[in-house]
Amino acid sequence: MALIVQKYGGSSVADAQKVMNVAKRIVREKDKGNDVVTVVSAQGDTTDHLIEMAKEINSHPSKREMDMLLSTGEQISISLLAMAVERLGYPVISLTGPQVGIKTSSVHSNARIISIDITRIKKELQKGKIIIVAGFQGVDENNDITTLGRGGSDTTAVALAAALKADFCEIYTDVDGVYTADPRLVPQASKLKYISYDEMLEMASLGARILHNRSVELAKKYRVPLVVKSSFGDNDGTYVKEVEKVEDKMVVTGVAHDTNVARIAVLGIKDKPGMAYKLFDLLAKNNIDVDVIIQSIGREEDKDISFTVSSSNLEKALELIKENLDYLEARGVKYRDNVAKVSIVGAGMVNNPGVAALMFEALAEANINIGMITTSEIKVSCLINEEDVEKAVKAIHDKFQLHKIHQ
Amino acid sequence: MALIVQKYGGSSVADAQKVMNVAKRIVREKDKGNDVVTVVSAQGDTTDHLIEMAKEINSHPSKREMDMLLSTGEQISISLLAMAVERLGYPVISLTGPQVGIKTSSVHSNARIISIDITRIKKELQKGKIIIVAGFQGVDENNDITTLGRGGSDTTAVALAAALKADFCEIYTDVDGVYTADPRLVPQASKLKYISYDEMLEMASLGARILHNRSVELAKKYRVPLVVKSSFGDNDGTYVKEVEKVEDKMVVTGVAHDTNVARIAVLGIKDKPGMAYKLFDLLAKNNIDVDVIIQSIGREEDKDISFTVSSSNLEKALELIKENLDYLEARGVKYRDNVAKVSIVGAGMVNNPGVAALMFEALAEANINIGMITTSEIKVSCLINEEDVEKAVKAIHDKFQLHKIHQ
Repeated sequence: MALIVQKYGGSSVADAQKVMNVAKRIVREKDKGNDVVTVVSAQGDTTDHLIEMAKEINSHPSKREMDMLLSTGEQISISLLAMAVERLGYPVISLTGPQVGIKTSSVHSNARIISIDITRIKKELQKGKIIIVAGFQGVDENNDITTLGRGGSDTTAVALAAALKADFCEIYTDVDGVYTADPRLVPQASKLKYISYDEMLEMASLGARILHNRSVELAKKYRVPLVVKSSFGDNDGTYVKEVEKVEDKMVVTGVAHDTNVARIAVLGIKDKPGMAYKLFDLLAKNNIDVDVIIQSIGREEDKDISFTVSSSNLEKALELIKENLDYLEARGVKYRDNVAKVSIVGAGMVNNPGVAALMFEALAEANINIGMITTSEIKVSCLINEEDVEKAVKAIHDKFQLHKIHQ
Repeated sequence: MALIVQKYGGSSVADAQKVMNVAKRIVREKDKGNDVVTVVSAQGDTTDHLIEMAKEINSHPSKREMDMLLSTGEQISISLLAMAVERLGYPVISLTGPQVGIKTSSVHSNARIISIDITRIKKELQKGKIIIVAGFQGVDENNDITTLGRGGSDTTAVALAAALKADFCEIYTDVDGVYTADPRLVPQASKLKYISYDEMLEMASLGARILHNRSVELAKKYRVPLVVKSSFGDNDGTYVKEVEKVEDKMVVTGVAHDTNVARIAVLGIKDKPGMAYKLFDLLAKNNIDVDVIIQSIGREEDKDISFTVSSSNLEKALELIKENLDYLEARGVKYRDNVAKVSIVGAGMVNNPGVAALMFEALAEANINIGMITTSEIKVSCLINEEDVEKAVKAIHDKFQLHKIHQ
């Protein structure tokens, strides 16, 4: 008998029929003799609908009240899913984030989980009940409802699995696993049977939007065994595990791409200490995440600093820099929005010199120009023109013969 | 400076525009220097919509999960109303029933308030905030969300006013006060300036659906001064007060009517002790409320017992009695659904003999047959044919010259 934490996203419970299907999956697990704790997101477009309702009334509502509003989405889906399980004749109870005792920081709309009190869940499990938990939400020290931001329900599931010492944390989504590349771009892409936490982290942060990296980080920290599966089929999915458990350490596990990227260059910055600090501190204080950074070697008295931000932050970043050109002692700012990032990820890369060169060769053969390059121990990323993305991913996938991966 | 508890029903906050209007009313009160705690119901048809969603999945969901689902309706409206107040530039905070510390019994869908912990509200009021509270909901000793059943938001408002020792509890609704009769039936009906708790209680239970009698009972118990007002206009409304404060003790305050009535007659019951107990205990155990009861004088060896139930309970009651005819030692059961109840209510009635006779005279003159009669110290009710209701209410209203009431 195992204890399994499952998580179903909004598309998996979008209507009554889908809710019933999820209920059937849950009781199937229960029938095997397992204890099941299921985390669920708000149904389909409920969250968007609630946001629209708010905007009709106030274009800049406080984040506290938005959290109060948005947390109803998950509360609706847990009660409906519990009713579906009841209909199948199984004992069940739904619990909100506050009821589960998911204590978070007070940063509304982007709270962090501080602790989970598992007393209530344990008590209900002992009664033989299936537990349905609202994802994405918690409660701060003032007893105010908070939400966890993007990927919040994944984070709830992993945190619960860690707190409960669950045997597995199953993440059900609309894809059936992690692939060597996006199958929409590369039809020959292979599904991975295993991937390490670190590789998954890089994949997640590189634009493969299967798991949010917060949840992968948490899974890694607490060694929670993750499985990514489709909520519609019965395929095996991809296991995310500790690296030493990944039998066949792949040199390159997959090719990720991200088109939600813009490049900004701040020109003619004075070549003296502290200038980069001033720039990135300014961006950080305004909640603009910066990804790749390249600083040109100083020529004469000034230098250029280039970096990438997500496209959605481009406008805000440009405005901020233009307003602060004097403070930054810079001459001007340039940007390009039609760029993209392609990356290779692989835990075996660290022991295999020449992997980066092979990637560059693939891009050169495909006649694709590289804008910026950045590397870590288990990944290499290149900035290219957005229009070249599909060609680049295919060329790299071919070069590393990733279609031949059969773990 | 006063402390005012307000309550707005679902129709008062049915859309974004109406939510903004309520916000304006709230801040107008705040501008007068008053502290404001506003209780609000779910928007318009939200509750019906949620019930539909549930029925699509499970035709008999547990009441616990229904409470979990339905309580989201009020949570949505408190957050939206708080956002509207924020937009007007006033400090505000929304609180759910559990956050307010409204502790209730565990009877899901029909819980009773046991206690209210006013610590949080007091703290927020001291910060100068307007407080928006979710009506209709609370939390039981297991930390499970409960709902208060019909008239729940009125009950929340009155209970809060009692706990906070508020100066007034204002109930905003879609009518602008309590009338001497339903103005849709009697266009000359006068609006009452004052009505006593007891009179209001009778009016409420007699089908004048302005305030639920649970909230009036609570207001009476804790001497909470109530005002019933329209949320759309600026008229004065009706004050519900202690009887000694009602300056002009009216002989008859109003005419109420209720068409949601059915009459059941259980025939040929053995004329021996304990038979009525058996019948009404059976009904009570099945949660069927009985209103007027008449027992015929026994003839020979058996007797008939007639009583009224609400139309919605008719089918269930008939089924129950038919199944138990042997147990009840009865011969059969008859019913009539096309009946209605008209009543006169007045605190001064007790000292004025002949009031009932005047009512019967009015009905006789209008050629209306009386089925059953029941009286209390401050009311007389007659069961009549449903088709005669309008004629009856008008005739009684005329007979007592209620259009001349000017308090």
